[in-house]
Amino acid sequence: MEKKYIIAVDLGGTKIGCALADLEGNILNENTIPTNAHEGEQEVLKRVFLAIEKILEEGKKNTEEIKAVGIGSPGPLDSDKGIILDPPNLPLKNIEIVKHIEDKFKIKTYLENDANAATIGEYLFGSGKGTKNMVYITVSTGIGAGAIIDGKIYRGTTCNALELGHATILPDGPRCNCGNFGCLEVLSSGTAIAREANKALAQGIESSLSNYEKVTSQEVFKEASLGDKLALDIIDKALTYLGIGAANAITTFDPEKVVIGGGVAMVGDILFDKVKQVVKDRCFKVLNESCEVVPASLKTKSGIVGAAAVAIMESI
Amino acid sequence: MEKKYIIAVDLGGTKIGCALADLEGNILNENTIPTNAHEGEQEVLKRVFLAIEKILEEGKKNTEEIKAVGIGSPGPLDSDKGIILDPPNLPLKNIEIVKHIEDKFKIKTYLENDANAATIGEYLFGSGKGTKNMVYITVSTGIGAGAIIDGKIYRGTTCNALELGHATILPDGPRCNCGNFGCLEVLSSGTAIAREANKALAQGIESSLSNYEKVTSQEVFKEASLGDKLALDIIDKALTYLGIGAANAITTFDPEKVVIGGGVAMVGDILFDKVKQVVKDRCFKVLNESCEVVPASLKTKSGIVGAAAVAIMESI
Repeated sequence: MEKKYIIAVDLGGTKIGCALADLEGNILNENTIPTNAHEGEQEVLKRVFLAIEKILEEGKKNTEEIKAVGIGSPGPLDSDKGIILDPPNLPLKNIEIVKHIEDKFKIKTYLENDANAATIGEYLFGSGKGTKNMVYITVSTGIGAGAIIDGKIYRGTTCNALELGHATILPDGPRCNCGNFGCLEVLSSGTAIAREANKALAQGIESSLSNYEKVTSQEVFKEASLGDKLALDIIDKALTYLGIGAANAITTFDPEKVVIGGGVAMVGDILFDKVKQVVKDRCFKVLNESCEVVPASLKTKSGIVGAAAVAIMESI
Repeated sequence: MEKKYIIAVDLGGTKIGCALADLEGNILNENTIPTNAHEGEQEVLKRVFLAIEKILEEGKKNTEEIKAVGIGSPGPLDSDKGIILDPPNLPLKNIEIVKHIEDKFKIKTYLENDANAATIGEYLFGSGKGTKNMVYITVSTGIGAGAIIDGKIYRGTTCNALELGHATILPDGPRCNCGNFGCLEVLSSGTAIAREANKALAQGIESSLSNYEKVTSQEVFKEASLGDKLALDIIDKALTYLGIGAANAITTFDPEKVVIGGGVAMVGDILFDKVKQVVKDRCFKVLNESCEVVPASLKTKSGIVGAAAVAIMESI
């Protein structure tokens, strides 16, 4: 029987997304179930199986029609060996998830960390289509990244390359959870934007942000768009540092595109205008002119299409 | 006739180094002639030919015994097309140097920028031997870098990747010749170290460095080793930023090794101890533990062995 379909698994700390996709990355069916992480390793694994069984049933496919399973999962993990090591938000520890799925369903399975999966998704089916070298940066509560080099995902020696969220941008900046000071994530993530706002409000700085009970980055962007000075200052600083992160990625990789996604990037022009300005100010002219900074196109589908893309990239 | 030899050309602003090497990168004969850059394009090209003719004669080889010519040249250049574009220290502009040499000597010729050539040299015959992914950083009057990814030099889209000397390390730092502020080169190069010393002396800060007529980075390292406070402070700052540059390279590439060469790196332990400490403080534990920071081993031969390595890597 011709293997014309892919199963995508987007494994998260709270939800497991699962989809049936064709070989062009189109999602045909999709479902989401809770991860139930608190119930432990075996339960999470059982729920991954369940999600796959459900999607086969709903999509009326049998396992022989499936070319491959692609899994996007929080790291750290070992892609080559198919093992999830010990992600902070999942109770899994050294789980051979690829082997478990292959044993149960007899379908070739591939594992990739979620940032790399989204990178492959944008490369095959999104804003990075047609490039040879591209960098993807996702800005949400944290900051992750991935790179396509010569048409292949670059993982590095221990599968921890492209941790651009933890590259130092401001040597004496605030301390990050990772232990480092002034890394990109602690300066430009949604969490960082909210933290700066709440800190300023606690110091009694006047701002329309004081009308909110607890300020998130969305509110800071909203009030900035309405002209609130504090909000504007915070956004400007965070996006300047993000621009430096992008400029450093361009200076390092000389890519055709830097694709920026994640929840924070959904604000659109205010973010991209600033990032492009900083890139122009800080990069060699030839690098600035040959590299486009563009929004991701998969948006909220980056996790599930990314997982599908992992399977498609590896199996075709 | 068996092609068992390589000709290496290390093209610089003041000197042209030329060598005959075997396929294991051993230098058999070597000569150096002035570039005579002030006499213009045709003269420089003539002198490259002359250097090659001389080395063939001295080494008693004819062109049929030569497998390939490797050229290391200041950038910017286009390796694929074999063209030197317009390096600041050379009067060459859009010179098809590869074609000129191939036409004259009928030997396959390869061109690489000098930082990449030194990277390939360290990878094939120096401290990077046996790795799959490595980053090379050279610290002298300026700061250059190169990366081996999956056993191949990584050039990027416009042959300008790995300009780590111009990645931003301190957003509000001093202005660099490249136009950017606070990039690695303006903070940690030999030039930067000397500049900081001369600036402090001009401000009347007391230091044993005031005994020198014009302070270079070598003197700053020397006086630091003798305990001079100003010299120690300047070195500590410059090496901290260099450590951040190395840490960011590790966080980005997850390499097996970071190899540091160039004139400034010859100071040895004082540099490597500090860089390793900063890397330990700022990188993920797994990255720090899996990546070694080591001195380059080709030292003053990095230019000429690098050029030989370019030819060997590309032709074998």
